[in-house]
Amino acid sequence: MQLFPKPMLDLVNKLSRLPTIGEKSAMRLAYHLVAQDQKLATEMADVLLKAASNIHLCKNCFFLCEGEECPICLDKTRDSSLLCVVEKPVDLVSVEKTGEYKGYYHVLHGLWAPLKGQGVDSMRLAELIDRCKSGNIKEVIIATSSTVEGDATALYIAKLLHEIGISTSRPAQGVPKGGELEYLDDVTLSRAFAGRIAL
Amino acid sequence: MQLFPKPMLDLVNKLSRLPTIGEKSAMRLAYHLVAQDQKLATEMADVLLKAASNIHLCKNCFFLCEGEECPICLDKTRDSSLLCVVEKPVDLVSVEKTGEYKGYYHVLHGLWAPLKGQGVDSMRLAELIDRCKSGNIKEVIIATSSTVEGDATALYIAKLLHEIGISTSRPAQGVPKGGELEYLDDVTLSRAFAGRIAL
Repeated sequence: MQLFPKPMLDLVNKLSRLPTIGEKSAMRLAYHLVAQDQKLATEMADVLLKAASNIHLCKNCFFLCEGEECPICLDKTRDSSLLCVVEKPVDLVSVEKTGEYKGYYHVLHGLWAPLKGQGVDSMRLAELIDRCKSGNIKEVIIATSSTVEGDATALYIAKLLHEIGISTSRPAQGVPKGGELEYLDDVTLSRAFAGRIAL
Repeated sequence: MQLFPKPMLDLVNKLSRLPTIGEKSAMRLAYHLVAQDQKLATEMADVLLKAASNIHLCKNCFFLCEGEECPICLDKTRDSSLLCVVEKPVDLVSVEKTGEYKGYYHVLHGLWAPLKGQGVDSMRLAELIDRCKSGNIKEVIIATSSTVEGDATALYIAKLLHEIGISTSRPAQGVPKGGELEYLDDVTLSRAFAGRIAL
């Protein structure tokens, strides 16, 4: 690899520090940027600098925004007694797309994942507790993913919130729309039965 | 997605123009750069600009280099009667790593792939022919990949080179080191038999 000029090796090195990008992929991306689309390389440098200097975390909910507060926190017509906790900004966008939820959000930017070396202080959890203590929040919907880490984080957060007298909930678990019973896993199906709804 | 600030959407847009990166992956990479590793974002912008302005194609062989000529072309001890044609810079590095080849190179930066809309003028082919006409090259090893496009390109280049009286060759095809006969495909095995070597 030493045959490549240093700026190329530097670029490969930086690209391979991105999640899911290994050295081979980084080499392919760097080659594309350097030899096939130099315009994209300079444009990308520009948007990277703009993104790094202009994007901040909202001071209330830690969603991404350009100013101090995100558009959702600025919308004062929402239900301030409801808070939805999500792991990542893109999860907030998914919930928002349903159009069903009218409360505010809190983005954790992480999960409690001891096996990956992420303790409970790797998330924006202290800020969530402070927010719940000071506001008039009545219910917190903990919408972390239905994975081992997501469930563990939800249970941990629920315990902390119960201690300060706030009720919590998790989105219902069950058969996804279009899901055929034949192909569902046991856990999902048994939860769907346990949570059955009167017709 | 409109909930995200514009610099974030711009970054996702640019990242998704990279090969093999779809919109979901681009979102994940952008989130990492913006919210989890802003230092990497600014460093990457820096190396992108340096790479775009400092890396050129070698004037002889079209490998990547910082000056006018690459280290291989500058090495005058090599055998100037041998030329190895490869598709991409990284292929040149692979050949070079074997330590067996002592001639010069020519990087095509493309293949003849009509199904992908790439004609024979999408490669550095005219430059190869000029080079072969003017130099004292005796043999050209066409080391494009053993794919449909790689084989078609090799045949096409060989025809052009034969017309100007230059002999061509392809790397041998056969059983790869460590390959078990049981798992080899028919084409590879029949070519290995056709090209068998006296023991």
